[in-house]
Amino acid sequence: MSPKDFRKDRRHFYPKPAGKPAEKGDSKAGTGRREAGSEWLYGLHAVQAALANPHRKLGRAALTPRAAETLGEKLLKRVKVETLEPGAIDRLLPPGAVHQGAALEAWPLKSRDLDEILAEPGTQGRRVVLVLDQLSDPHNVGAILRTAAAFGVTAVVVQDRHAPPQSGALAKAASGALDIIPYVEVVNIARTLDELAEHGFWRIALAGDGESNLAEAIPTGDVALVLGSEGAGIRRLVREHCEASASIPISRTMESLNVSNAAAIALYELRRS
Amino acid sequence: MSPKDFRKDRRHFYPKPAGKPAEKGDSKAGTGRREAGSEWLYGLHAVQAALANPHRKLGRAALTPRAAETLGEKLLKRVKVETLEPGAIDRLLPPGAVHQGAALEAWPLKSRDLDEILAEPGTQGRRVVLVLDQLSDPHNVGAILRTAAAFGVTAVVVQDRHAPPQSGALAKAASGALDIIPYVEVVNIARTLDELAEHGFWRIALAGDGESNLAEAIPTGDVALVLGSEGAGIRRLVREHCEASASIPISRTMESLNVSNAAAIALYELRRS
Repeated sequence: MSPKDFRKDRRHFYPKPAGKPAEKGDSKAGTGRREAGSEWLYGLHAVQAALANPHRKLGRAALTPRAAETLGEKLLKRVKVETLEPGAIDRLLPPGAVHQGAALEAWPLKSRDLDEILAEPGTQGRRVVLVLDQLSDPHNVGAILRTAAAFGVTAVVVQDRHAPPQSGALAKAASGALDIIPYVEVVNIARTLDELAEHGFWRIALAGDGESNLAEAIPTGDVALVLGSEGAGIRRLVREHCEASASIPISRTMESLNVSNAAAIALYELRRS
Repeated sequence: MSPKDFRKDRRHFYPKPAGKPAEKGDSKAGTGRREAGSEWLYGLHAVQAALANPHRKLGRAALTPRAAETLGEKLLKRVKVETLEPGAIDRLLPPGAVHQGAALEAWPLKSRDLDEILAEPGTQGRRVVLVLDQLSDPHNVGAILRTAAAFGVTAVVVQDRHAPPQSGALAKAASGALDIIPYVEVVNIARTLDELAEHGFWRIALAGDGESNLAEAIPTGDVALVLGSEGAGIRRLVREHCEASASIPISRTMESLNVSNAAAIALYELRRS
């Protein structure tokens, strides 16, 4: 390694001691400096899945000795590993990040092509594509990706301009699913829903005021399930591009379910029906 | 109001201007001073439900004019209202708290008595009691309370020494459910499970390695559903006090579901079976 490389390592890796003023031009002091466009992923599952994903561009890993042992040499040979104390990893990450001794510099995943995914040989049972209409809360989106992967969803579609950033918080909540589930960013969700219809998918909008009970709205065959954000719900135009709207029956005591809990119930029902 | 009361108001209510050093004996500077034992609840649903709960001891409300209008005079006549700009409410709360213009000083709810709850006239359908074995993540516990209330769960039982603190973050995730669902803190969960058995409840431990498929494990009649924390799972002794253990079938790609998503699926299945 040349002296220049070594200096670069220090610039991009070591956290600044607390209280030391930021260097000129260093806008990322205090949250762990990274190269442009990268994010710190953290948590054992998220880091493990990113290391195992050949399509993921990676920087360097900051690990406790124990986390390095858990992840194993084979996975870690792709990246430069720096062994640190848990407190030093804390200082690379946003306050309160539960990193379990593992942080990894990673670039966001590139969108996949929906037609290509749909052309791949299917697994048994119906195909389900999950469409997220302007959901943005990273904990909710992460939890939805985790459950979508757990129920073998074929792809998750988001709108590129309103896609939730692939942040460390989202990846942690996804528990590795971000690197497992095919993730598709599209320009226009309504148009993508029409493409899904051409592929034979029945499009269901899940909404508190849906016209039918979810269990009764599920047909035989492939389904595109559309979810809206907790505040605004599914946009009118997007909803108009669905064949059906459905709701999960709940007590009148509560206005609604948390969106990731609603998604979990719907994906479960789609697997069992 | 006497001059003394007014001074007290200022001490406990106005946020300290940023950068001003803390006064002697003021350990809560920077997160909105409150009286001993109280917490700031925030978010419209959480604040509304606490105001509507006659058993809840309340302090004062910090509201934007718009939030005050949404909540309405009738609910607000219980408390002293201070009208503030959103930024001033931000400064009362932990960083990043999504308060929607509403914060309310509130004391934790007292535990209810399980026997008393079970003696109340039941609603239609089976009774479900949810038992949380040392779950602590406030977002997960809050989301579970919200979904439990949505599915008309009879009571939620937690262990007093390991109960999740009734924090603002938990109450926000619960979206009002903390003030709606009967909440029971017990000393010994295993003993409470035996009491539930005496009341005729069938006790099911929900676990990734459960012996049977959840849908097949559900009997006719009342059910106590036990959930463990994401890390440690259900403790061995607690699990031994259940008649059955059950899992939700998922793809081998993922190790597990998020605990609040698993709870949502199980509560849905218990309502439909």
